[in-house]
Amino acid sequence: MSDVGPRFLKGHGTGNDFVLMPDPTGSLDLDPALVVALCDRRSGVGADGVLRVVPSALTAEAAASADRATWFMDYRNADGSLAEMCGNGLRVFARFLVREGLEAPGRFAVATRAGVRAVLDDGRGDVVVDMGPAVLPGLGTVSVSVDGSSTTWAATAVDMGNPHVVVVLDDLDDAGPLCAAPHVAPAAAFPDGVNVEFAVRVGPRHVAMRVHERGVGETQSCGTGACAVFAAVSEADGGAPAGDEWVVDVPGGRLLLRRRDDGGIDLRGPAELVADGTLDPVWVAAHGRRAGAGS
Amino acid sequence: MSDVGPRFLKGHGTGNDFVLMPDPTGSLDLDPALVVALCDRRSGVGADGVLRVVPSALTAEAAASADRATWFMDYRNADGSLAEMCGNGLRVFARFLVREGLEAPGRFAVATRAGVRAVLDDGRGDVVVDMGPAVLPGLGTVSVSVDGSSTTWAATAVDMGNPHVVVVLDDLDDAGPLCAAPHVAPAAAFPDGVNVEFAVRVGPRHVAMRVHERGVGETQSCGTGACAVFAAVSEADGGAPAGDEWVVDVPGGRLLLRRRDDGGIDLRGPAELVADGTLDPVWVAAHGRRAGAGS
Repeated sequence: MSDVGPRFLKGHGTGNDFVLMPDPTGSLDLDPALVVALCDRRSGVGADGVLRVVPSALTAEAAASADRATWFMDYRNADGSLAEMCGNGLRVFARFLVREGLEAPGRFAVATRAGVRAVLDDGRGDVVVDMGPAVLPGLGTVSVSVDGSSTTWAATAVDMGNPHVVVVLDDLDDAGPLCAAPHVAPAAAFPDGVNVEFAVRVGPRHVAMRVHERGVGETQSCGTGACAVFAAVSEADGGAPAGDEWVVDVPGGRLLLRRRDDGGIDLRGPAELVADGTLDPVWVAAHGRRAGAGS
Repeated sequence: MSDVGPRFLKGHGTGNDFVLMPDPTGSLDLDPALVVALCDRRSGVGADGVLRVVPSALTAEAAASADRATWFMDYRNADGSLAEMCGNGLRVFARFLVREGLEAPGRFAVATRAGVRAVLDDGRGDVVVDMGPAVLPGLGTVSVSVDGSSTTWAATAVDMGNPHVVVVLDDLDDAGPLCAAPHVAPAAAFPDGVNVEFAVRVGPRHVAMRVHERGVGETQSCGTGACAVFAAVSEADGGAPAGDEWVVDVPGGRLLLRRRDDGGIDLRGPAELVADGTLDPVWVAAHGRRAGAGS
């Protein structure tokens, strides 16, 4: 197979897009240089991140979970670093497993660096993924401002495993173009930076949002951000009873959220596979640390 | 082949990227909606444009040229509209033909909507394409300014089949972030808008440039823009003798230009094929006018 490069797929969930790298033998060397090259939107395939699809039993991270979750979602950020979880990515990952016949349609579990997560995918329509619980740490007064506006907004901090602050506005345009990261105070409360969501109420149990992801910029969608908005706005409204479904519109589409009896949040949304093919071996040799390793 | 969608490839030249759609039977229905969906960088494959690879003899546009150029480059902009020529795209198109065995390595011709163009591709390294002549129409005083700066620069108009104005700066950063289109006066001289290049002299026969493409924004590279910079700066230096090679650095890489004896400009630069695969038929059905037509 020396003149065929490794297989890849491209997929997205509400505009959050991924390169999937099937690795059934656990032998793919996804070095950071190759991840960065893959995610480059001009000279690579282009994506927000890479999802390596590997049997849990063949990984150090997830071998202990292999009896509960056959497949491990090895998620990498576009800068090549490891990431724990991604709600939009997990939907696309699940859709690939079902479409490929690696999991039967219905309920199954996927191992991630944030633990084993339950998913529900019938192979068509929306996919539901377990995002875990939202924690409102009650940090006291948190404020957000943006370049080009003299307004300072009060914000609610939400921990979804990663840090968020949520600002409720009257109009999403009030946050301006978001060319630069919003300023969040006290900065010391977020030593690793913070994702900032701006939300408006659209109707009962229906909000719309924009998100500025730390280290990335404004994006089309953020699964943990949608959970943070759901948690912050429903808490302000007196709390969302378990089972009530909320609509969260993101720039890239529509997500549906509900709190389960156990406090975890189910995120429901679309997952599209766009393309399936192989990387050019000359390109891989030029951009990765090793040429086509594991293919 | 009802469960396999049409074939595609992704490639780029100096960061100007394309989806190639091989269409050996001339039966692919590339409707504008599918082109727009393909070029979407989040929910599609993502590219600056689409290059349909079709035998000239099977097209209305190029059948008369089929004896000189076997293949027609059917280039579409990311907004779905037809385009005449693209120097970076033509290099990638030629590299595909050679890699696929559809043309022998060496010199051959490709039909485009701007006429038959000569190319030279040995199948590796750089590709050389004929960009045609540059015309300096001598429009008199043309001036350029950008938002956020009080400076107004004198500019040279260049016609490469499409309109350009070239500004020579001391520092490329002087043009600022180029979030918005530069202002060009007199606007009446450019009724269809204009591409604006900012250039600095790096050394003898060596310039660096940035480009703001009309209707697109700042891009990584522009083949006709590189020709315009070469023409304007060499003209200011007293003219470039035929055969002298100039280096034009663009944000996405390096291009080499020379004027031939017949006045045409040869553009030399890299062409990389990144990936080769098939579009998901469910995705095509959801985004194109017709599902997988011609596949």
